[in-house]
Amino acid sequence: MVKYANRMNLQNGSEIRDMLKVLSQPEVLSFAGGMPAKEMFPVEKMMEAAMKVMKENGADAMQYSSTEGFLELREQIADRMVKKQGVKTDADHILITPGSQMGLDFSAKIFLDKDDVVLLESPSYLGAINAFKTCEPRFIEIPTEEDGMIMSELEKILDKEKNIKFIYVIPDFQNPTGREWSLQKRKEFIDIINKYEVPVIEDNPYGELRFEGESMPTLKSFDTKGLVVYLGTFSKILAPGYRLAWVCASTEILEKYNLMEQAACLQSSTISQMETARYIRDNDLDAHVAEIIEVYRKRRNEMMAALDEYLPKECKFTRSRGGLFTWVVLPEYMDAKELQKKCLERKVAFVPGSGFYPNGNVKNTLRLNYSTTAKEDIHRGMKILGEEIKKMLK
Amino acid sequence: MVKYANRMNLQNGSEIRDMLKVLSQPEVLSFAGGMPAKEMFPVEKMMEAAMKVMKENGADAMQYSSTEGFLELREQIADRMVKKQGVKTDADHILITPGSQMGLDFSAKIFLDKDDVVLLESPSYLGAINAFKTCEPRFIEIPTEEDGMIMSELEKILDKEKNIKFIYVIPDFQNPTGREWSLQKRKEFIDIINKYEVPVIEDNPYGELRFEGESMPTLKSFDTKGLVVYLGTFSKILAPGYRLAWVCASTEILEKYNLMEQAACLQSSTISQMETARYIRDNDLDAHVAEIIEVYRKRRNEMMAALDEYLPKECKFTRSRGGLFTWVVLPEYMDAKELQKKCLERKVAFVPGSGFYPNGNVKNTLRLNYSTTAKEDIHRGMKILGEEIKKMLK
Repeated sequence: MVKYANRMNLQNGSEIRDMLKVLSQPEVLSFAGGMPAKEMFPVEKMMEAAMKVMKENGADAMQYSSTEGFLELREQIADRMVKKQGVKTDADHILITPGSQMGLDFSAKIFLDKDDVVLLESPSYLGAINAFKTCEPRFIEIPTEEDGMIMSELEKILDKEKNIKFIYVIPDFQNPTGREWSLQKRKEFIDIINKYEVPVIEDNPYGELRFEGESMPTLKSFDTKGLVVYLGTFSKILAPGYRLAWVCASTEILEKYNLMEQAACLQSSTISQMETARYIRDNDLDAHVAEIIEVYRKRRNEMMAALDEYLPKECKFTRSRGGLFTWVVLPEYMDAKELQKKCLERKVAFVPGSGFYPNGNVKNTLRLNYSTTAKEDIHRGMKILGEEIKKMLK
Repeated sequence: MVKYANRMNLQNGSEIRDMLKVLSQPEVLSFAGGMPAKEMFPVEKMMEAAMKVMKENGADAMQYSSTEGFLELREQIADRMVKKQGVKTDADHILITPGSQMGLDFSAKIFLDKDDVVLLESPSYLGAINAFKTCEPRFIEIPTEEDGMIMSELEKILDKEKNIKFIYVIPDFQNPTGREWSLQKRKEFIDIINKYEVPVIEDNPYGELRFEGESMPTLKSFDTKGLVVYLGTFSKILAPGYRLAWVCASTEILEKYNLMEQAACLQSSTISQMETARYIRDNDLDAHVAEIIEVYRKRRNEMMAALDEYLPKECKFTRSRGGLFTWVVLPEYMDAKELQKKCLERKVAFVPGSGFYPNGNVKNTLRLNYSTTAKEDIHRGMKILGEEIKKMLK
């Protein structure tokens, strides 16, 4: 008889899978995904980069390569970490992973024994929660407000709990809420983790996609004790289909990530790495990111205008200054899954917020994505959402 | 203070890493790797496939895609599984993974709680042992002989042990020994697993690379109870740099692999999948595999001739009928790690066998790879190996 591991009882992909079935109908207006806008991918230029790599180095591009990753790409990433994120680092402190999700899987394996504690924002990224669950930790959610984690609550937990192995945070345009942490919260947070000496996983897929306001320093840029593990990715600034991301961490911690990558998948795709490095060498990635930002800013503006127009005043939402998402808080008595059913009947999809709370007890929230939807569709979709919410008002 | 999970104590990449440093010196003659011959990669044709994909479907190729994998590629794989492996299957029973190593990682997560038992051939693939170790199982090694696992020993263990979660085997040109299981052993094995109803991971990266003899049916082709999970890969028949492999399993078990892939890495590279599918559509992959076989057969012949000529009669080795490896058994009093040091001083590298025994108590074996070495170099290297062995004879 086939017996599975206990961790398999914790995994439930069916809810999202069921929704994906609905989404595969072409007439559905989806605000459910988290995809970048594919019309922005630099297809021509990536094709040129691919040609050069194949002509000059084709056989090497198709061969196995090192676990740590292609040196030119690690140097380019380190260079961006210095210039964009204010992190003093170099190629030796970068490990290329096949997507940031893989970095989350490694984080779980490196730090978590069964029943160890993970602290994270409430709510937090569903995919991270699922990755961590395979190591069967206990999740403690730290309450958040508009400008980030509530630090007094974090300290209370750090004082009280044993076996806290790491804190997982997304300070920049968080998935799902779209919020960013204030500078003051970032500084307070670093003081706290330095005091308690607890590792931090700083996940930053969206930080470069800022529509307004001053660029905010990453937690990693304040890290003097080597406690912050930084996860970056090309998925939102270039394209996700190559599956390329990176970990930036201290020598000792990065060595563990390297061991886990050897054990899990040997390496990231050689050809993806060489083609991406060639694209960055021959093109201006910053200019490309600026173009993406222009497009997303317009869609964000449309989304905010539509929410202002159609949501009843009983709802709140994030005025996202960057990233791909906004977050709607419904009146407390409302169930976003009920609302989801009503909206799906009218071919409008979103993600109910409950999955983003690992201990699952919040029903009145939902996530909206605006990066892949045209102006008219945003208005049409939000009008339907607003109408259905109004029907559920008490 | 940073505290790691207990599993990190089990991981030791340093031995191989130290050797990799030696191997990076260009003058070293290496029989240590397990790489395919890069001069055989179809660079031109993959470039053509890449151009077509990028021109016709570039934006989709760069976007996220489904966890199960690109449909055309799954259909092509299912078709090969039917024609080459005699497995009655279809695209719905194929999951694309970013390399077979990832399939091993998923296997561990799906079946293994701490202290559960994994059965495997003694010796077995080092990379599988490392992948499984992250779930902290207990390994029980089943003794093997020239034509495969010793079935009476397997039954003894199955009778005695509780919590056996799966049996991991490589019946075709095994890594590290180069051996293949006889037809009779395959049939006996299936009778046994059907009786005990224990899942099997059949890892088959080398099966298509047969130099002589009749094609042997896979275990999966005999599987009537849905107990066999089959792992296949493009790494050895096309190229490893794209990181593409697959799992073929029953609906129920494949669903678990899909969940683990969602949690670990979301999906395999979209662009790698589309380009590989296009290559297979436009070219004759079987003809390509036939070309690889011709080259490897010559190198195998050279390796066998050199071992006949230079090894003292006190040594035994596998007359590999396929795959990338042969396996040398030294006299029992000899330590392959000592021999390795002596050979490295003379710039010849191989992998001592001890790492292939998870419970680590065999010192007098070593693995030799012949897929990437030219004729003269095989003779020069084996001459040095033979000389150093002779110096250690008692």
